[in-house]
Amino acid sequence: MPSNYLNFRNSIPWVILLLEALFLIRSYFFFLRLDGLGSLSSSYAEFQDVNHMVIFGFGFFLMVLRRYGFSSTGFNLLIIVLGVQCSVLVEDLLVYFHLEANEGVLKSIAKALISMTAVAISAGAVLGKTNLVQLIVMTLVELIVFYASRWINRRYLEVGDHLSLMHVHLFGAYFGLAVASCFPEPSPRLDKNRSTPKSDLFSMLGSVFLWVFWPSFNSLLAQSRRKAVLNTYFALAVSAVTAFMLSALTSKDGKFRVTHIHSAALAGGVTVSFTAQMISLPWIAMILGLLGSAITILGSHCLQRCLNPPLKIHDTSGVHFTFGLPAVLGALAQVVLLVIREWTNSSSLGYLVLLHVGAFCQTISLALLTGFITGFILNTRLLKIIPVSKYFEDQFYWEVSLNVKL
Amino acid sequence: MPSNYLNFRNSIPWVILLLEALFLIRSYFFFLRLDGLGSLSSSYAEFQDVNHMVIFGFGFFLMVLRRYGFSSTGFNLLIIVLGVQCSVLVEDLLVYFHLEANEGVLKSIAKALISMTAVAISAGAVLGKTNLVQLIVMTLVELIVFYASRWINRRYLEVGDHLSLMHVHLFGAYFGLAVASCFPEPSPRLDKNRSTPKSDLFSMLGSVFLWVFWPSFNSLLAQSRRKAVLNTYFALAVSAVTAFMLSALTSKDGKFRVTHIHSAALAGGVTVSFTAQMISLPWIAMILGLLGSAITILGSHCLQRCLNPPLKIHDTSGVHFTFGLPAVLGALAQVVLLVIREWTNSSSLGYLVLLHVGAFCQTISLALLTGFITGFILNTRLLKIIPVSKYFEDQFYWEVSLNVKL
Amino acid sequence: MPSNYLNFRNSIPWVILLLEALFLIRSYFFFLRLDGLGSLSSSYAEFQDVNHMVIFGFGFFLMVLRRYGFSSTGFNLLIIVLGVQCSVLVEDLLVYFHLEANEGVLKSIAKALISMTAVAISAGAVLGKTNLVQLIVMTLVELIVFYASRWINRRYLEVGDHLSLMHVHLFGAYFGLAVASCFPEPSPRLDKNRSTPKSDLFSMLGSVFLWVFWPSFNSLLAQSRRKAVLNTYFALAVSAVTAFMLSALTSKDGKFRVTHIHSAALAGGVTVSFTAQMISLPWIAMILGLLGSAITILGSHCLQRCLNPPLKIHDTSGVHFTFGLPAVLGALAQVVLLVIREWTNSSSLGYLVLLHVGAFCQTISLALLTGFITGFILNTRLLKIIPVSKYFEDQFYWEVSLNVKL
Repeated sequence: MPSNYLNFRNSIPWVILLLEALFLIRSYFFFLRLDGLGSLSSSYAEFQDVNHMVIFGFGFFLMVLRRYGFSSTGFNLLIIVLGVQCSVLVEDLLVYFHLEANEGVLKSIAKALISMTAVAISAGAVLGKTNLVQLIVMTLVELIVFYASRWINRRYLEVGDHLSLMHVHLFGAYFGLAVASCFPEPSPRLDKNRSTPKSDLFSMLGSVFLWVFWPSFNSLLAQSRRKAVLNTYFALAVSAVTAFMLSALTSKDGKFRVTHIHSAALAGGVTVSFTAQMISLPWIAMILGLLGSAITILGSHCLQRCLNPPLKIHDTSGVHFTFGLPAVLGALAQVVLLVIREWTNSSSLGYLVLLHVGAFCQTISLALLTGFITGFILNTRLLKIIPVSKYFEDQFYWEVSLNVKL
Repeated sequence: MPSNYLNFRNSIPWVILLLEALFLIRSYFFFLRLDGLGSLSSSYAEFQDVNHMVIFGFGFFLMVLRRYGFSSTGFNLLIIVLGVQCSVLVEDLLVYFHLEANEGVLKSIAKALISMTAVAISAGAVLGKTNLVQLIVMTLVELIVFYASRWINRRYLEVGDHLSLMHVHLFGAYFGLAVASCFPEPSPRLDKNRSTPKSDLFSMLGSVFLWVFWPSFNSLLAQSRRKAVLNTYFALAVSAVTAFMLSALTSKDGKFRVTHIHSAALAGGVTVSFTAQMISLPWIAMILGLLGSAITILGSHCLQRCLNPPLKIHDTSGVHFTFGLPAVLGALAQVVLLVIREWTNSSSLGYLVLLHVGAFCQTISLALLTGFITGFILNTRLLKIIPVSKYFEDQFYWEVSLNVKL
Repeated sequence: MPSNYLNFRNSIPWVILLLEALFLIRSYFFFLRLDGLGSLSSSYAEFQDVNHMVIFGFGFFLMVLRRYGFSSTGFNLLIIVLGVQCSVLVEDLLVYFHLEANEGVLKSIAKALISMTAVAISAGAVLGKTNLVQLIVMTLVELIVFYASRWINRRYLEVGDHLSLMHVHLFGAYFGLAVASCFPEPSPRLDKNRSTPKSDLFSMLGSVFLWVFWPSFNSLLAQSRRKAVLNTYFALAVSAVTAFMLSALTSKDGKFRVTHIHSAALAGGVTVSFTAQMISLPWIAMILGLLGSAITILGSHCLQRCLNPPLKIHDTSGVHFTFGLPAVLGALAQVVLLVIREWTNSSSLGYLVLLHVGAFCQTISLALLTGFITGFILNTRLLKIIPVSKYFEDQFYWEVSLNVKL
């Protein structure tokens, strides 16, 4: 192990300490009091669903690599709790300077958890390739840029609060891809970035958790929560069915591929995230679930064969086709549904379409741009020390008791 | 691999596609709008419990076979989402033709999830022996027959809506057994239908989930939800205790057997499912839990040694003693409690007993009859292609990365 | 295997039967009717969280030993359901004799589950070293003593009902330690009391569950539930961050140690358990989370090197530093916060401080005293039969299908 890495690693705790001290000091000076906020909100059960989903679901969903189980769950927990604190304090500052209304701390945490999904998704794209300092820097930069992107959407493009949060999958996936494109590719002969049946089973566990809690995620802050829950449920159901169908159709011998099921069963939830609260006819949500699942599986074939090799992008857990493409489809569907609904009212139609397309383009381009910059910063001499041969190794970060494969 | 199987396997996606297309078309023409249904129901948290239990709990509960982990969870997810869609659309048709009152889509999905438990139980009886097309055919046939059975119970035998759903364990277990009796037995030397400590641990995980969420399952649609929750909780507690006691008593050297704990800890929940909402004295629920657990463990010994070998029934995950016998006991207990309560009112007693016994006999005989027919259809040349030597193999359906045992 | 052990083991089922019969008889004579208790309480969702956390979370959290997976989860389930029944019936007796007001059965079960946490914690200290009869005796004794301790606190030291329950970590940890000190130490060459990466992953699963559900645990019976939830969430977040920081600082090469993360991420929840409902400024909860996590990790080093070897205490899953030290810190913080708040009101300050210190000293000394006595009883010839060489073995209690390591 190179000695400069050892020196570097010794700095990890101080980075974390510095951050936590910052949070504490800020919270000391700016934090609102908890008094007089009334009783526990009625949405506590759904808040718990989302909390469970983000901490547990993503932690285990990312456990796809054979030797990276502790890092997948452990680092996911760390960056989420760091990010939630950061995000809550940003909200507090905004409330303190009267830039936003005070909606209570529980709602702040809920928003922070949903925002952190972007970081969890981006972390999936560079899974196993970043060290912890890189991951923390990425978390903070991404969170702040996502805040900025939401603020632009809300302020200039008339996007509602809930909808601006639902851009989280789009933002997370493309930010993560842009960051991943700056990292060197692992050697194709390396077998550490494969999965074993056991890691796949743990990942299946996380993925079923995400599936079950997704309706709560899409509805937590929606105006019409009932519609959001039902449409998400139908979209998820159809996308799970389609996942099995297309996995068998596209693979050799008609066998199912586990990664297809993991990714495509969730695609429905991502695809309807923009439109779940406004669709009145469930068959539309079902069609969106079907298309989302289809684009995920077809995308996974096209991207891994045609797009990623020439562009030299190595997307460890496939966030591009799991979250990126369905989110693009969802944004498109939102515009199409808007055009259909407002067809008679042609005066404002063009303006509304422009706003939606603008929000989409702004989000994706800001994600790509800042993602490249972040990726570039992460690969400077200062932060980048892991050699490519040490990728995807729990042992590099954890005192593992025995040298046993997952 | 026989070439006719390859041709056959290639048909799987088309079967799924056909079904999904059917659902979409039906939903396009008949689906109710989601508008104007008011706010998210207060029972959303319990709905999520049941959703979690059916998708996750049963998926992992069935993971008892050493090489069948992906199929257990994956196929469970697939048949449940197919079945829920099918069931919701059947309900919609009934509402559309004014045969039933409209109770909202969330309640439809909840009923559909509870009904799907029957299919999940039946799937446990033939676990590892059916291919996916057989499983899908079984799902649809069973769901429709269970619907018919519930309709007969409600219409002619004065069984309430909630109680008619609670016949789900009885129906699922005997339908599954009848289907399983038509399949050839696996070779006794085969070791693939055994469990390993690791598959047992995953199964324990699913089984603890089922245990925790069972009160929500028994109370979701009950009139007196509080009573249903408490009685189920007490019954489950006693049956878990009894499971340990009897497992040690009946096994060699006084050791515990893992399958006993899995099955018998849940027996209390099955046994009180009929009576949970009407018992006023918890000690009755506790006694039922004790008896349910006892019949499960004694049944597991008797059935596996005396009944199954001569009848040539191979019940992979033991649904007969896990769900069948406790449900029979529960139905019996329901009649006994009714007799005790209505003893003074002798005029209507005979009639009420007749109705209850009739509902029980109708459910079980319809389950057995249609189960045999379904088993026969599944074993015709058209559908049955897996050779017995390929039973219990994930590799037959999934692209498993390495040939590693669970 | 010694023949006296076989005879002994055959007595296990009869002990369980005797207990269960006692519960049934008591419940027959004293149990309140479930009629007329109104609708399902609004806190059912949080009750389910705590139920899930105690049964599932602790069951898997304790799965740290390589060959003790079934016993960890299975025995945890058994002692919790036994303890809950015992505790509910004690409450019923108290209500029956008009010593306590009737608050409904669901609340009784909730209190019972929280009280059982003490036993689950104590079981962690002697994990793998007790046979099942010893564990059951310990459960009953500990539960009754904890009841007595709470009663003294409530009656003579003016501790509220919720706060008296929050002494559960303190009581459980020191009772468990006192019991563990009476057991002979396992041989240092034994490798069965180590963990494997697989057992650590299952333990991580349980530990994430505990983390997610801890806010529900601390708030279930609090007066100001909203404050309790938010303060616990912040404390948990900071303690998870601190866990990573200090684990890297204190271990060789700056690597993370899995046990540190397991223990210290939860320390925040334990530390704020006394004060969660009264803190108005979240930064105080955050500081407490930080200190709790720090004391856990520093404690784990000091205790394992300096304190445990001379005292010959073998604390299998480290409950002293996971639950004991943070609870001591929490009790101290409670006094400090009280002094700060009541500083102006100096007349009653001394009296209040005396009450708090008294409750703390009473709880810890009663736990230690009765723990030693219990440990002594458990090690008499009558109950203690396992030889030290058979410690930490699932195979001693379970019919394990194959001799495969976890």
